Amino acid sequence: MKIGIVLSGCGVKDGTEIHESVLTLLAVGRIPAEPVFMAPDIDQLDVVNHLTDKTPAEKRNVLAESGRIARGSIKDIKEVKEKELDALIFPGGYGAAKNLCDFAVKGENCAVNPEVARLIREMHKAGKPVGFMCIAPVVCAAVFKGDPDVKPTLTIGTDPGTAEKLEKMGAKHVSCRATEICVDEKNLFVSTPAYMLADCITQADKGINRLVDEVFKIASKSSKM
Amino acid sequence: MKIGIVLSGCGVKDGTEIHESVLTLLAVGRIPAEPVFMAPDIDQLDVVNHLTDKTPAEKRNVLAESGRIARGSIKDIKEVKEKELDALIFPGGYGAAKNLCDFAVKGENCAVNPEVARLIREMHKAGKPVGFMCIAPVVCAAVFKGDPDVKPTLTIGTDPGTAEKLEKMGAKHVSCRATEICVDEKNLFVSTPAYMLADCITQADKGINRLVDEVFKIASKSSKM
Repeated sequence: MKIGIVLSGCGVKDGTEIHESVLTLLAVGRIPAEPVFMAPDIDQLDVVNHLTDKTPAEKRNVLAESGRIARGSIKDIKEVKEKELDALIFPGGYGAAKNLCDFAVKGENCAVNPEVARLIREMHKAGKPVGFMCIAPVVCAAVFKGDPDVKPTLTIGTDPGTAEKLEKMGAKHVSCRATEICVDEKNLFVSTPAYMLADCITQADKGINRLVDEVFKIASKSSKM
Repeated sequence: MKIGIVLSGCGVKDGTEIHESVLTLLAVGRIPAEPVFMAPDIDQLDVVNHLTDKTPAEKRNVLAESGRIARGSIKDIKEVKEKELDALIFPGGYGAAKNLCDFAVKGENCAVNPEVARLIREMHKAGKPVGFMCIAPVVCAAVFKGDPDVKPTLTIGTDPGTAEKLEKMGAKHVSCRATEICVDEKNLFVSTPAYMLADCITQADKGINRLVDEVFKIASKSSKM
């Protein structure tokens, strides 16, 4: 079984949340399934110094920085088709809201990177599960914005402002603990709050393991049909 | 219990190996012990594009990049004293051999960053355990180079070239599998090959969990004395 993992840079403040990515990889490895790392080949929205929170005038490429998490083994998402994957997972971090879509800047009026949107739509149409953690559910809500046939059910934890924006995009938001998951049985979307709520890595690890296990369970059923 | 984790940047090719760092943090969190991230406030030796392996003319700071793994919560190693810690652990990655010492350039003639060397010496003198994974044992060998009273026993896996250089610095090298650890009972050094040998994250995870458990066991005994 092949599980795609979509990265958005390297570091919680301007890219993928690193712990969430590695915990996802560990859970995928334990199944065992084959991870397929991918990211868009675009510039990051910004570069944030993770020590000072300053944003130096510097450019970094999302695919190259994501390669740090993937140890160099990563594909440009535009080359990845639904047919090669059994499931797809999005770790969080501000990169999901800055580089995969522009939710961090435009909120509910955000647009999604076309290749990211294309792959999510392909997976959904093929009846394959897609997992979203932390802030990444906003990408899903934005892809299906105002589509009454989809109307995804998702969680970003408990933050009222973000939940409201999700609902403005037409999604249904469900509050959820860091160690739990939210399952949209109709659309086969699975989400968990991860570091939107987790106080420590072991809490995030519990929710992420549950998400990966659920995604695997759904993908196993789908592949038998 | 407080366990220091020394980082050397963010990404296996020019900094800390990211998976090893997160697996260390997860194992420390499960004890549960308190992690204390630290790194030297210096420029990286180089910046490597993890997609192309090219080295662009770019500067990055070891402490700021390490902050990506630590989610911003990290100290300059020069401000950390042995008294605040019960144990110290070095994940690997080329950063250990490029930024914490210059083994990647000078081999057995390498020098160690003075603050890194100071903290390892302080921990050793205080009878507190220090763990080294992947290529990081070269830092330990370099700190105690030619000191017959210490002569650390370490593993970097099975690579004959690196093992020979460790022995030229006066250390004893022991071959070891990715899932196993090497324990120097006299000096309280624990090492594991991690990604020097691991084919996948679950293998690295086993060895790293064993290392963290052994370091914790030794630290628990030391603190009762």
